[in-house]
Amino acid sequence: MTVSFYPDIKTVSGVNNSHATSYRAWLQYTFITSTTYREQVMSLLKEMECLNGSDISESIEQEWTFAIRKMIGFQPAVVPEVKGNGLRIVYVDSMEKEAFHIKNEDGIQILAGGEAGALYAVFTLLRHIQRQGDLHSLNMKEKPANPLRIINHWDNMDGSVERGYAGESMFYRDDSFRENIVRWKDYARLLASVGINAVSINNVNVHKVESYLITERYLKDVARVADIFRAYGIRLLLSINYASPMEVGGLTHADPLEEDVAAFWKQAFDDVYQAIPDFLGVVVKADSENRPGPFTYGRTHAEGANMLADAIAPHNGIVIWRCFVYDCHQDWRDRTTDRARAAYDHFMPLDGAFKDNVILQIKNGPMDFQVREPVSPLIGALKQTNVIVEFQLAQEYLGQQRHAVYLLPQWKEILNFDTGHEGEGTFVKDIASGKTYNPTHSGIAAVGNLGDDYNWTGHTLAQVNLYGYGRLTWDPTLNEDDILSEWSDLTFGQEEHIQQLLEAILLPSWLTYERYTSPLGIGWMINPGHHYGPNIDGYEYDAWGTYHFADRNGLGVDRTVETGTGYTSQYAEQNAKIYNDPNTCPEELLLFFHHMPYNYELTSGKTIIQHIYDTHFEGVKGVESMVANWEALEGKIDDKRFSDVLERLKHQLSHAIEWRDIINTYFYRKSGIKDIHQRKIYE
Amino acid sequence: MTVSFYPDIKTVSGVNNSHATSYRAWLQYTFITSTTYREQVMSLLKEMECLNGSDISESIEQEWTFAIRKMIGFQPAVVPEVKGNGLRIVYVDSMEKEAFHIKNEDGIQILAGGEAGALYAVFTLLRHIQRQGDLHSLNMKEKPANPLRIINHWDNMDGSVERGYAGESMFYRDDSFRENIVRWKDYARLLASVGINAVSINNVNVHKVESYLITERYLKDVARVADIFRAYGIRLLLSINYASPMEVGGLTHADPLEEDVAAFWKQAFDDVYQAIPDFLGVVVKADSENRPGPFTYGRTHAEGANMLADAIAPHNGIVIWRCFVYDCHQDWRDRTTDRARAAYDHFMPLDGAFKDNVILQIKNGPMDFQVREPVSPLIGALKQTNVIVEFQLAQEYLGQQRHAVYLLPQWKEILNFDTGHEGEGTFVKDIASGKTYNPTHSGIAAVGNLGDDYNWTGHTLAQVNLYGYGRLTWDPTLNEDDILSEWSDLTFGQEEHIQQLLEAILLPSWLTYERYTSPLGIGWMINPGHHYGPNIDGYEYDAWGTYHFADRNGLGVDRTVETGTGYTSQYAEQNAKIYNDPNTCPEELLLFFHHMPYNYELTSGKTIIQHIYDTHFEGVKGVESMVANWEALEGKIDDKRFSDVLERLKHQLSHAIEWRDIINTYFYRKSGIKDIHQRKIYE
Repeated sequence: MTVSFYPDIKTVSGVNNSHATSYRAWLQYTFITSTTYREQVMSLLKEMECLNGSDISESIEQEWTFAIRKMIGFQPAVVPEVKGNGLRIVYVDSMEKEAFHIKNEDGIQILAGGEAGALYAVFTLLRHIQRQGDLHSLNMKEKPANPLRIINHWDNMDGSVERGYAGESMFYRDDSFRENIVRWKDYARLLASVGINAVSINNVNVHKVESYLITERYLKDVARVADIFRAYGIRLLLSINYASPMEVGGLTHADPLEEDVAAFWKQAFDDVYQAIPDFLGVVVKADSENRPGPFTYGRTHAEGANMLADAIAPHNGIVIWRCFVYDCHQDWRDRTTDRARAAYDHFMPLDGAFKDNVILQIKNGPMDFQVREPVSPLIGALKQTNVIVEFQLAQEYLGQQRHAVYLLPQWKEILNFDTGHEGEGTFVKDIASGKTYNPTHSGIAAVGNLGDDYNWTGHTLAQVNLYGYGRLTWDPTLNEDDILSEWSDLTFGQEEHIQQLLEAILLPSWLTYERYTSPLGIGWMINPGHHYGPNIDGYEYDAWGTYHFADRNGLGVDRTVETGTGYTSQYAEQNAKIYNDPNTCPEELLLFFHHMPYNYELTSGKTIIQHIYDTHFEGVKGVESMVANWEALEGKIDDKRFSDVLERLKHQLSHAIEWRDIINTYFYRKSGIKDIHQRKIYE
Repeated sequence: MTVSFYPDIKTVSGVNNSHATSYRAWLQYTFITSTTYREQVMSLLKEMECLNGSDISESIEQEWTFAIRKMIGFQPAVVPEVKGNGLRIVYVDSMEKEAFHIKNEDGIQILAGGEAGALYAVFTLLRHIQRQGDLHSLNMKEKPANPLRIINHWDNMDGSVERGYAGESMFYRDDSFRENIVRWKDYARLLASVGINAVSINNVNVHKVESYLITERYLKDVARVADIFRAYGIRLLLSINYASPMEVGGLTHADPLEEDVAAFWKQAFDDVYQAIPDFLGVVVKADSENRPGPFTYGRTHAEGANMLADAIAPHNGIVIWRCFVYDCHQDWRDRTTDRARAAYDHFMPLDGAFKDNVILQIKNGPMDFQVREPVSPLIGALKQTNVIVEFQLAQEYLGQQRHAVYLLPQWKEILNFDTGHEGEGTFVKDIASGKTYNPTHSGIAAVGNLGDDYNWTGHTLAQVNLYGYGRLTWDPTLNEDDILSEWSDLTFGQEEHIQQLLEAILLPSWLTYERYTSPLGIGWMINPGHHYGPNIDGYEYDAWGTYHFADRNGLGVDRTVETGTGYTSQYAEQNAKIYNDPNTCPEELLLFFHHMPYNYELTSGKTIIQHIYDTHFEGVKGVESMVANWEALEGKIDDKRFSDVLERLKHQLSHAIEWRDIINTYFYRKSGIKDIHQRKIYE
């Protein structure tokens, strides 16, 4: 199938020419003004050797010729055989499928383990050229660290996106698939360009209509999407409803140990693979937040997941089973129950009990994508179970893509966390990549931040998180500065001044957001439901297990072994010890683990209450800098993206002031302690 | 037009025979088991003299013969002339239209000023018979105290009801009128039986589609409703959209001083009266909560209302202009702005500036239908302006018809409040009735509590509020006990034990609700938006002007002249003085007017904090009693109503516990002061 891409930008629903730079994201392929460099490219890469392969080969040729023409101003010939200078792609059986080696030796060559590797190499080389990298000493040898590199869509078929902040779903509208092929292809291009190799296209909360995605009613449509993604090396996942045997199959139950249920799933997967032979597998949110699951029938999660695994195994499919299981009907009066404990308590006893094609997907922290949490104690503790670490690109609790927050620093901290489960140096990144325990499957998944907005992500700067997510899952050793400068070069051009301003805006943005929102590991001081804006007591007396316990003397959750919930004991010994003691607990997590008095003195010499005041004033100042830095970009980048971002930054500033004032006033009213700097705290 | 009524209960949408007792509300017309009494009725009232008049006459005959047949077991003959015993209705020109005099003199006679008066007399006599009142010494002389006795529906044409807690709209569905004639007629019967004489049938927030109610598109449907209501002496009102000249008329503005706008309204009202010659008038919410209004064009409310008044005057129509005008974008940081001041500040300067057919509708309190508020200072202060007092049957802030709350005690307090504006004894009830200032129009309106639920009001016991509202607006000197026992007799039968239990449940229910929710005049500690359930800080940092200012030392709003917002000065001198001083301020309103320390000692000898704890524990105990008392009714009333109410009372109990614990914990955490009785307050 041939689908044109964004030369035809006007064919994308809701996108017109004025949106072009926004829509192209980091695939601008801006014309390179250096004549010297262009001439070098023209001479070294005047032709490419044509490929004979699957749809991916066609994508490779398209991407290469299109991008070179845009950047350099000529279209390379595609020839049966390159003689002399040109681009040649050579498949090497001994290499891993997704690995590549780009070198300049007998002309520019890509050695690749397979077509996907070649595709990644082409995108890498194009990035290199856009940044005017040296082509003579080319020697780029890469392979992805994480076998699975997944985006989870939380799209509903009515067109809404759960926790979506970038318009409506690009896949669905009114319970049907949209006619949105050009955008789907452009989306696949964006993903492949940063190495994403799997996408689930429907919400993990699978409602009635989405339960039918695995049936005849929708499988042809699903296959259309799969076709588009396949040409970019991306495999499809669907979220399934654990109650489908009842809701779709007409059975009276969904007990995983009953024959008829197993038979239902076997048939369902046969149908799916009939339509999509390379279908990757399914994502399951079971027994979570009122979703059905094996608990209903007194079965374990292992029994529940293994039944699906057996049904999908003949097709080599996988079952991704989410560990986001906790009691969402908790009594706020009960200080002994601790939601943070839930995933570990539920899944740790099952280590080793899951089939080889089951993968547990574990959220990065024990709660739910807060501004700051410790790493989930389950990561690393499970040694005989396939795991995937789950991040969230969608900025649910992080400003909902109306606040600019560069998430890479958060993810880097998490990936570099030493779980200590196999002695010192048992890093999250190595557990995710499979290096530590060598599981059958491993990798990273993330909830996407995308919709049908003309800039994909609502906030233009939120594009960086999608870019960075891809790059980091490909290579977790990349650092956030380098990824940002790559992205900045590709997205806004290579002027050094632009890059400096973007760095000044984005590198500290997560910490800035943390400053004006959530001090010292306290989360959940947010409006319930939609999760936007401050509401300190919003979750305090609710059933979600999400409390701060602030009173007139102090705040924080006692999770110690001695006097608290004992959550600290879920970590490997050294970490457990550190977290359990307020004197050794990292201060940015102090209130996550301990209930502390307002006048407790931090290592900075400040009391907690003064720290709260200071960080909230600093946070607003940080946003003021962001606005000023962005304003300095006027005229240096296109007006549309300039004004789009400026509008959001201005909102961010006013909203940060709201956060600052509400939090400061709340804690001032409660503690009665004045700001030692006598700044304005409203009474 | 003849429409049958609830003998045909199965023809009402959503209602079946099992719902019969619920649906009949207080018009049960239960068969009277006393043979003596039945024989007395049969002998005294064996026939009635037929009437020749409008639709109301037909209603009178229908109501009388139907009810007598059900209660007594025979159907009175309707004869051209009653000779000897029987019921005769005689119209007396010198009486007011709605007045009547029932006496037994030459047989039972109803003297009435007009058909409406006769209808009210018939319902009164039927009530008397149902309660087996004496018929020999009959001498009931009545006329309504309030000329206008109105129910406002907040129904939207999509079928929803704003602040509706009893199902969907009985008037609309999917932007059309429903085919619901039987229910409309039964509704008119219920209203007329307690003297309501006007109904507005659409939400004061008039959206796009409802703007067309005054146009050809819907006027035929409106006229159908008017026909039904007319037969029960009820006139129709519509809420209008002040921006209709633009949204419906295609003008570019809605400036009330522009000719084209006036012409639009003149034409619109001509059309309305063409369809409904006795149309009563319009209700307007302008410049309120983001609704359009005259402020948009720099005009005053008087200019805005008078233009409409002039347009509708040729048809003798009225314009009811709501005074619920305030800044809903207030900054919580600003303690000087006071929403409570808003209505007075806006409207007081305009006293005397409104046309004779404009009526200002003033909410009972200065805020918005809280559990307890002082009386609006505007009531009584406006001396040269027609006013209507507005109540809310819909239990928006009072448990949403899931909690049983008998509202009459609240209304009685309000009606008996002495505003002092014409010296001692200037009661709200006399201002509303027109006795004090003798205005052209006056009366009482209330937001209805009705929907298409089979029991009309969601909670079966909420029927009492509709009944009581009608009775009280008819005669504000009736007391809440007597109204309750009337209602109880009619609704559940005359067993003394039943009545005692219902009194035990309902008479203290408002105070009980207040105890477990809102101490000492503090309001707004409720979930924003839907207004159900506790959320102490829910409105505290929001833009609605609704704050409690609780800190670690105390709580309440300083509305004094010296140190607060000066709101107290809006009252007549004596009240202003009383409210302004915490030592004389009625304690149930103490925190409405004053910011007080937790340890302030009340006249009970208790501190405020102890009062909070005590009332919250007592409130829950009160609900426990309600449940126990209701359970004692098992077998004494029909199962359906018994179980319906029991289910809601049980929910009320668990929800009251939630209120108690959250409020007690909130204030304990803030004050740090322990309950002197050492009951369980969660930390």
